[in-house]
Amino acid sequence: MKVLIIGAAGMVGRKLVERIAVEPEILGGPIETLSLVDVFEPPVPTSLAAIAKPGTVDLAKPGVAEQLIADRPDLIIHLAAIVSGQAEADFDLGYAVNLDGTRWLFDAIRTEGLKEPYCPRMVFASSIAVFGAPFPESIPDDFFTTPLTSYGTQKAISELLLADYTRRGIFDGVGIRLPTICIRPGKPNAAASGFFSNILREPLSGQEAVLPVDESVRHWFASPRSAVGFFTHASTMDTSLIGPRRNLMMPGISATVGEEIAALERVAGPKAAALIKREADPTIQGIVAGWARCFDATRARELGFTAETEFDEIIRIHIEDELDGKIGG
Amino acid sequence: MKVLIIGAAGMVGRKLVERIAVEPEILGGPIETLSLVDVFEPPVPTSLAAIAKPGTVDLAKPGVAEQLIADRPDLIIHLAAIVSGQAEADFDLGYAVNLDGTRWLFDAIRTEGLKEPYCPRMVFASSIAVFGAPFPESIPDDFFTTPLTSYGTQKAISELLLADYTRRGIFDGVGIRLPTICIRPGKPNAAASGFFSNILREPLSGQEAVLPVDESVRHWFASPRSAVGFFTHASTMDTSLIGPRRNLMMPGISATVGEEIAALERVAGPKAAALIKREADPTIQGIVAGWARCFDATRARELGFTAETEFDEIIRIHIEDELDGKIGG
Ligand SMILES: NC(=O)c1ccc[n+]([C@@H]2O[C@H](COP(=O)([O-])OP(=O)(O)OC[C@H]3O[C@@H](n4cnc5c(N)ncnc54)[C@H](O)[C@@H]3O)[C@@H](O)[C@H]2O)c1
Ligand SMILES: NC(=O)c1ccc[n+]([C@@H]2O[C@H](COP(=O)([O-])OP(=O)(O)OC[C@H]3O[C@@H](n4cnc5c(N)ncnc54)[C@H](O)[C@@H]3O)[C@@H](O)[C@H]2O)c1
Repeated sequence: MKVLIIGAAGMVGRKLVERIAVEPEILGGPIETLSLVDVFEPPVPTSLAAIAKPGTVDLAKPGVAEQLIADRPDLIIHLAAIVSGQAEADFDLGYAVNLDGTRWLFDAIRTEGLKEPYCPRMVFASSIAVFGAPFPESIPDDFFTTPLTSYGTQKAISELLLADYTRRGIFDGVGIRLPTICIRPGKPNAAASGFFSNILREPLSGQEAVLPVDESVRHWFASPRSAVGFFTHASTMDTSLIGPRRNLMMPGISATVGEEIAALERVAGPKAAALIKREADPTIQGIVAGWARCFDATRARELGFTAETEFDEIIRIHIEDELDGKIGG
Repeated sequence: MKVLIIGAAGMVGRKLVERIAVEPEILGGPIETLSLVDVFEPPVPTSLAAIAKPGTVDLAKPGVAEQLIADRPDLIIHLAAIVSGQAEADFDLGYAVNLDGTRWLFDAIRTEGLKEPYCPRMVFASSIAVFGAPFPESIPDDFFTTPLTSYGTQKAISELLLADYTRRGIFDGVGIRLPTICIRPGKPNAAASGFFSNILREPLSGQEAVLPVDESVRHWFASPRSAVGFFTHASTMDTSLIGPRRNLMMPGISATVGEEIAALERVAGPKAAALIKREADPTIQGIVAGWARCFDATRARELGFTAETEFDEIIRIHIEDELDGKIGG
């Protein structure tokens, strides 16, 4: 089987490729070629060197999608995106990558299928950003998408295209609405959501972290390991069970910042929790006030998608997967 | 004030222009120029000859939107569309007109605004086709859009763009989700929804009509007069009351085919109703089974949009507006 991962140098992409390196048939069978593309050179684990074809491409350039589809991959995992803050700051770039790039990819598959029958599995990374406040306490699967960012708009439009192209038999699409992935590995970043991970990741390595919001702030989380699981399950599941509503809100944990900190204290002790400095930031408080707090995610659970059930697990996964089991840096 | 109506040769466009001819300030003030464009030459009522600028243009051609926006209209009413059946039969044409045409129009306004501040009112004709079965008995305003046609997909995408461009201050948008307009004037057409109007319009003119579905079929209706009212209200209302959720399901009447026929009999007598011939059509029955039956339309009603409250009114409006008050042809 031929696999194409777009956005393979990103956080989720790298985690997914590392998982394939450990479990080579996780995507449903032996992989013949694994095309890994991104605007940055995607890292290739040694054990995948024989099958991996890394490439640096810009999906937002005309003609690129056709090149990616030319060898007719059986499975396409589309993770490439301009993230929320940047898509808001740069209108043209966000629409070019997140909307046009995605549409060109979808249309390249259609064009390929007009030459000779072709219907690959297409797994697309969407986001909770397709929703916009005000929300009910827990958001049901049939709640409407009224995004309050251009990024969320671009993801919601991509979802609609995914469902229509699937209905038309152009590809076999599954849209994965990711919770906020926590603990995001790497350095603290400037994203407004960064603190949800920073306040755990930094103390677990003996570093201070800043908490800009109140402990009562509630949000929806899943681990990077769960994120990888969402994409492998979507790649291999029986899609005939989904029906025409192809975009699925993924399961996760609804937790407050206070609950995050309590879990940190249980897993890593009060010294770790003491490294969190409270510095209120009204801008971040304002942004976060518009975010979803909880989802039913009933359909995804029924279709076999799973995530953590308590926050301590999210912390333990980070310690196992990123810190070689050792707390404290 | 400068007004631009795109799709002005269509059914709703012509009705709207006729209304402006009778009530020249219905769009909120005296009109300086009334640009009426369509792929077909839009008819111009004599009383509007001095201000009307009719034009034949194809919105799906690059550069056309910029030309339409060049004189910076204050109000744009965008009615142009490839309708459902044709957008389903011709993938490229549907996406070119209903998605690209709309996006080019929106982007032309953005480009114009980058030169010099500009934020016109933009009223867009959407459709109940943004929804896809299965539905609750009455669809609430926060129900999700999972269209089952490419036309519905294109309308749902346009709605998302409308909300995002409005949020960004590019224009001041209102999306009008039209019920099925009944009684549609003119000749019987091939649309799957045609019979809802045919079984009333034809008997009211002494002609036979075919009913292809069961009398228990329920659907959501408003008159052409109400449709015009939706667009004039959206053109003049205080949009600060809407908030960021700019796409509104319009009020209407939920009625069964049996209730339509009973109303016809009450208004025009049993002879008219006897002109309806029952010829079951399984294809049309199948299509119609997936259509919405009833909406709450709470937000639109609260924002001052109004429609008929009983089906007899819908029939009387047709007799007044299309038959000069005379039944029987
Ligand atoms: N991490 C989260 O919490 C989260 C939550 C919701 C949704 N998502 C979505 O999941 C996907 C993966 O998330 P992530 O955290 O790995 O994001 P990331 O930013 O780490 O990775 C995205 C990758 O896409 C690449 N990319 C951007 N523009 C491109 C282009 N024009 N052509 C090719 N590649 C391009 C970037 O270089 C980057 O490596 C994204 O689509 C993101 O929007 C992530
Ligand atoms: N009539 C209904 O029951 C109903 C219901 C829901 C939504 N709508 C929507 O309301 C709007 C008006 O409906 P209508 O019944 O008057 O439809 P219509 O088909 O009578 O009018 C649409 C007009 O758009 C024009 N048009 C098509 N492509 C064009 C292009 N590329 N450039 C310029 N003009 C183009 C057509 O020539 C036509 O005159 C449409 O957007 C339709 O999708 C109508």
